Amino acid sequence: MNTTLSWLEQIAWNEQGLIPVIAQEASTGQVLMFAWMNREALQLTVTEKRAVYWSRSRQKLWFKGEESGHVQQVKDIRLDCDNDVILLQVEQLGGIACHTGRHHCFFQQLQDSQWVTVEPVKKDPQTIYR
Amino acid sequence: MNTTLSWLEQIAWNEQGLIPVIAQEASTGQVLMFAWMNREALQLTVTEKRAVYWSRSRQKLWFKGEESGHVQQVKDIRLDCDNDVILLQVEQLGGIACHTGRHHCFFQQLQDSQWVTVEPVKKDPQTIYR
Repeated sequence: MNTTLSWLEQIAWNEQGLIPVIAQEASTGQVLMFAWMNREALQLTVTEKRAVYWSRSRQKLWFKGEESGHVQQVKDIRLDCDNDVILLQVEQLGGIACHTGRHHCFFQQLQDSQWVTVEPVKKDPQTIYR
Repeated sequence: MNTTLSWLEQIAWNEQGLIPVIAQEASTGQVLMFAWMNREALQLTVTEKRAVYWSRSRQKLWFKGEESGHVQQVKDIRLDCDNDVILLQVEQLGGIACHTGRHHCFFQQLQDSQWVTVEPVKKDPQTIYR
């Protein structure tokens, strides 16, 4: 795979060769999740038009939705002013971005010095991951 | 400052004692910027109801808008499923979040293997920072 593409070179990869990525739902504007990409993940995201992340815990490419079917179709890719953060606009297949079975990952709200879960589980995670 | 508050302890701070933070405009849903907070920054954000980040380049607290007046009033604070990413809902005073004088930081769009600037400068940065 050609890793000398200039648009990839313009990115300010961090010391681990990664860039933080925000996935936003194109249709609702909701911020679904946050993850990381390396060069290969970003290149695959572009060519396959679906989100491919780098799993730091598993140290491998993470084809989002691979197991669950909850693929993120990529509609737009933005880079920030410092060239070190990516913002994706996606359509979230299945309506579930979070491994907890919720629509998105940001379901804990700070209320009076407590993190309160304010959004429902849409699907039991045990039935999502086989 | 009391740093043993349990809601702060529940956060999975990274090895530098930081957490990534996404700032989203409450009124439009637009993702404005991405930055980092340490414990003190997050605690100040909560008590002052305005975004206070940790500047990694300057290694000090960054009271967003301190110089420019472009303060971010905080409406909602969310934590993700892994307790390691914060999502803020803010109102962006002055309508400019980016140091380039643009509404938000994600103004470079990937088009045919090129990053293209697709959003205008609303105010000359030289007039923002004195």
